[in-house]
Amino acid sequence: MKVEERAKLLSVLDGAVERPPPIWLMRQAGRYLPEYRASREKAGSFWTLSMTPELAAEVTLQPIRRFDFDAAIIFSDIMTVPFALGKEIRFEEGEGPSLDPVAAVDGLETDPEIWKSRLAPVYEALRLVRATLERSKALLGFAGAPWTLATYMAQGGGSSDQRAAKLWGYRDPKSFDLLLKLLADCVAEHLVAQLEAGADAVQIFDSWASGLPETRFMEWVVVPTKRIVQKIRTKYPKAKIIGFPRGGTLSGYEVYAAETGVDAISIDTSAPISWAVDTLGKTVAIQGNLDPIALIAGGAALDRAVDELLKTTRGTRFIFNLGHGILPETPLEHVERLVARVREAN
Amino acid sequence: MKVEERAKLLSVLDGAVERPPPIWLMRQAGRYLPEYRASREKAGSFWTLSMTPELAAEVTLQPIRRFDFDAAIIFSDIMTVPFALGKEIRFEEGEGPSLDPVAAVDGLETDPEIWKSRLAPVYEALRLVRATLERSKALLGFAGAPWTLATYMAQGGGSSDQRAAKLWGYRDPKSFDLLLKLLADCVAEHLVAQLEAGADAVQIFDSWASGLPETRFMEWVVVPTKRIVQKIRTKYPKAKIIGFPRGGTLSGYEVYAAETGVDAISIDTSAPISWAVDTLGKTVAIQGNLDPIALIAGGAALDRAVDELLKTTRGTRFIFNLGHGILPETPLEHVERLVARVREAN
Repeated sequence: MKVEERAKLLSVLDGAVERPPPIWLMRQAGRYLPEYRASREKAGSFWTLSMTPELAAEVTLQPIRRFDFDAAIIFSDIMTVPFALGKEIRFEEGEGPSLDPVAAVDGLETDPEIWKSRLAPVYEALRLVRATLERSKALLGFAGAPWTLATYMAQGGGSSDQRAAKLWGYRDPKSFDLLLKLLADCVAEHLVAQLEAGADAVQIFDSWASGLPETRFMEWVVVPTKRIVQKIRTKYPKAKIIGFPRGGTLSGYEVYAAETGVDAISIDTSAPISWAVDTLGKTVAIQGNLDPIALIAGGAALDRAVDELLKTTRGTRFIFNLGHGILPETPLEHVERLVARVREAN
Repeated sequence: MKVEERAKLLSVLDGAVERPPPIWLMRQAGRYLPEYRASREKAGSFWTLSMTPELAAEVTLQPIRRFDFDAAIIFSDIMTVPFALGKEIRFEEGEGPSLDPVAAVDGLETDPEIWKSRLAPVYEALRLVRATLERSKALLGFAGAPWTLATYMAQGGGSSDQRAAKLWGYRDPKSFDLLLKLLADCVAEHLVAQLEAGADAVQIFDSWASGLPETRFMEWVVVPTKRIVQKIRTKYPKAKIIGFPRGGTLSGYEVYAAETGVDAISIDTSAPISWAVDTLGKTVAIQGNLDPIALIAGGAALDRAVDELLKTTRGTRFIFNLGHGILPETPLEHVERLVARVREAN
């Protein structure tokens, strides 16, 4: 009988330096994969795909089978949390998610048992994946962060400048704070339930953390994330948590690493990796930050970017990833080349 | 006869601390103004408005008349440079500019005399404005930066992730470098001609400088901007230049301030003002960085944000501005309130 090794990604989150580093890619279960597109077509809609446990489990596993990544991330959507809070989520073809805009916390569901019953398909999908996935691969759960969720809820969908949420926060900071707290509580419950269903670690996606004035970054990004981490750790003191405040300033990343309590911080493409190693690397593991467009470009530019990341992170707790999600136009052979090159790191 | 005072903005660029600081707003001649909307309607198209000297001069002066800003910025568009290079620019209602995508420098116009003859209406508009504008107000010329212009030219219009330009630069760095050099030369000629037509200073807008890996920021943003500054200074050693590498990382802003030779750096909303004062403020003047959405919000949040900027920049060479252009939905009375509050600074 084979003795299964511990997942490298979890070793890194636990404090070890792994070489070669573990690798996975944000949005790795996605449209660049022909087998994903087939599953997506079979499901009929994105929401059906993500909320049907067998289908979600299948697409979660597809990129592991094809590329042997070191971690699987459950196929789901950040809009699960607004859904748990009672909002109907619409996914129209070729557009992002939309919902009726929210202007107050009143009327949003506050019962954790109802949240979890609405999100039961996510937990069932995790159980199905964990039953199949080798122990040498980490299984990641995730959720959107309160600020990013608030931008969708205030706007009724995606926005280029997060205007509705900012206006709410500027004009009525007290009620906006109530919204962020409710979101943090729901996110914490959702992440705890994912850990209980088999996730080895969880990632908090704050995809719209860019463009915030310093004090607002603290109030709207750092403080709610800290609340989530504390709530999870009250129940599971050793829970492993990765934070991704995408597009934070360098000082924003620093305060996020220092204050929130996450084990690892995922950095976007513009954050210099040598800076991250020297500063963030002292307190947390680093994940990132290859340019998804360099992965489309391929060739010498891709090799050079990968080699620079590998060289700079030698001796650092590091998880190889992109600076943002993989793009649908990414050639499969570029992903293969990337994984092979990372696995050759010494 | 009235002795006209020197424009405060120019004193700041020259090395003085002015209190209260001079104030102007990016895109201050724009859709939030009813008189602008009337001029725009009369002109029929955005391009006609910007390329008809009398009309461009009129809309340039409108915000000065209404708000008594300390600087007028010529009403023009960053697509003037691709137009000078021979590209036809299309502005469709409700959309950004578009043009036939460019995949090589071959075929682009290289004769500076032709560039300047194509952009003659901009210089004529500057002469008209300078003839009317009091000397106590600075007149600013401007141009898009090579990297930002390249993103439009490679894509054939705006893009959310600058993909076409990045792919070009990753896959064929040599020909992309030729494009950036040609753009830098055309921008330098255009800015020199604007100074000769009456501009007191010029601003270089690198609106898409965010999201670049560190080494690419150096090659695609810093180096071409330095080339522009050097070319201008060869002809006019004392020319005053403001740079705006919007969304640069904090270390990106630092290297930009240290390397390009600009007199002032305009920072976006997310850059902490205290950090900017402590680091950038040693070598350049600082311009920025009120959140345009705080200006829409108004009220106590606006007052607090303005007061924090004023307090933190006391003793620093500072130009009050937004972190990005003013938005069409901005209430006029919030702009009035802002100007009044800045003018009370001590």
